[in-house]
Amino acid sequence: MKALVFDGNLQLLHDLPLPVRAAGEALIKICMAGICQTDLEITRGYMTFHGTLGHEFVGVVVESDDPFLIGKRVVGEINCVCGSCASCISGRYRHCTRRTVLGIAGKDGAFAEYLVLPEKNLHLVPDTISNEEAVFVEPLAACYRILEQVTLQKEHTVLVLGDGRLGLLCAQVLKTAQCQVTLMGKHREKLYLLDGMGIISGLIHEATGELFDMVADCTGSPEGLPFALQVIKPQGIIVVKTTIASPRDLDLNSMVINEIQIQGSRCGPFPPAIQALEKRQIRVSPLISQIFAFKDAVAGFHAAMQKGALKILLHM
Amino acid sequence: MKALVFDGNLQLLHDLPLPVRAAGEALIKICMAGICQTDLEITRGYMTFHGTLGHEFVGVVVESDDPFLIGKRVVGEINCVCGSCASCISGRYRHCTRRTVLGIAGKDGAFAEYLVLPEKNLHLVPDTISNEEAVFVEPLAACYRILEQVTLQKEHTVLVLGDGRLGLLCAQVLKTAQCQVTLMGKHREKLYLLDGMGIISGLIHEATGELFDMVADCTGSPEGLPFALQVIKPQGIIVVKTTIASPRDLDLNSMVINEIQIQGSRCGPFPPAIQALEKRQIRVSPLISQIFAFKDAVAGFHAAMQKGALKILLHM
Repeated sequence: MKALVFDGNLQLLHDLPLPVRAAGEALIKICMAGICQTDLEITRGYMTFHGTLGHEFVGVVVESDDPFLIGKRVVGEINCVCGSCASCISGRYRHCTRRTVLGIAGKDGAFAEYLVLPEKNLHLVPDTISNEEAVFVEPLAACYRILEQVTLQKEHTVLVLGDGRLGLLCAQVLKTAQCQVTLMGKHREKLYLLDGMGIISGLIHEATGELFDMVADCTGSPEGLPFALQVIKPQGIIVVKTTIASPRDLDLNSMVINEIQIQGSRCGPFPPAIQALEKRQIRVSPLISQIFAFKDAVAGFHAAMQKGALKILLHM
Repeated sequence: MKALVFDGNLQLLHDLPLPVRAAGEALIKICMAGICQTDLEITRGYMTFHGTLGHEFVGVVVESDDPFLIGKRVVGEINCVCGSCASCISGRYRHCTRRTVLGIAGKDGAFAEYLVLPEKNLHLVPDTISNEEAVFVEPLAACYRILEQVTLQKEHTVLVLGDGRLGLLCAQVLKTAQCQVTLMGKHREKLYLLDGMGIISGLIHEATGELFDMVADCTGSPEGLPFALQVIKPQGIIVVKTTIASPRDLDLNSMVINEIQIQGSRCGPFPPAIQALEKRQIRVSPLISQIFAFKDAVAGFHAAMQKGALKILLHM
């Protein structure tokens, strides 16, 4: 089969064997996959992962121990867990100490014609959700993680920092909590994408000095957290969503004096993400910059690295 | 009156007028005061405060609008708040945007023969608590703040990092939550001070790799937080208690991936601190390095700056 492999270099290989299904795993034929910032960072050395990239996908189950799953269109949670380590026993499955992570750590990913994943990781995709939408379930789930970690009320003011792929999704997800959501970024043309959704938007360098109850840092930049610390209310919460390089000149004194909470946030629950797409609560189509045929995956990858690119999809 | 004043230089002045009592304030004759790390940092430029230092004290009310208070021995909360700003209205009084802070910001402090504080800031000291113990109420209250911010259960493992004044108090306060508390520091002779209190102790450089549900950083060092990030469990909480210089090489990726919460923590509630001293739950006497007569306050200050010094008290 074909797969986009990173082994120090990024290349589309054509003659790889199909991945081998272990007990409890399903073999899935990929329909479509999305390129994420993490994929780009892996090619810059992040996580020291070598193998088939990709973890945002929708596909069809072709082999499974569970006959019900055969032929079903699915998306899949990316953490493959042991179920028996201290983290798993305490219910923190996504933090399994022995986990592999699809296309990120120890497990070949979704930029391929086929992948294998544990059946328990799979979620059915309703017919009303297109493939183009379904590839957003995984990053959307990561946004819903914030609503598991932070209790937002109507009167809370929330700032999403960063108008990239994750920021645009995050602002929409947080808006479902009925609170006041502001999205700040550096690109007026991206901020426009959420017009008419009840989300306030503005350019970071035009910030007015308003303070917020919660800030979600989706900048992917070392400048994100220092800015968040400037615009957070005392006792406020900063959720850090993206893995970032070490910030410099980070004034942690203000974090202590103002009793700020900084909360790391990673993967999240799939069901609310699927439901939100089904109910048309989240607008994902405007976030698609381009769809590449899989044979042009390397070109797609380079397109995703361009300044201003939003979501690049690969069509298998 | 005499007062220990910092105006770029630190000096004991002898002929200052008594502080003037505003409406709602009490005039207090200081009996004893404690030197805190924050006092030392102010003389190194922290908070750019100029004036009479000191915020840990016990004294006797000599003038007040409330006749009940006259002659009573009191300790006092250090944040003087407006009651009408957004923070105050939302109940976050200690984060009043117009606050002055005793001996730290905008208000002359406790290293003096007299101070003034709002009557609502005062707490009566029971007769069973000595002056030497009562000066620990303010830093102890700051430790109790952690129990307001974090819900600790019996099965939780907690690490207090730093065997200085604050770490030694913090370990004892967290132990009152019945969880497993470990204190790690760099000085075997300080760790011994809590022997027999059911607190596990060890040297930081001999750490075994055990992971903890919560870590309280009381190191006052930029090395504290990076170490805390190494020994915290996934989804664990790091409480940062001390104002510290900017940490370098802080790997915030691990905070995101492991979904760690970093919580700033400052001043806390006085009543549980007073009760704990009354019930002899907290051992403070071993933390007193030396008591200086107030005329020797400058020498006391320099003693507090010595490596290995614990609490230095000033006796007025």
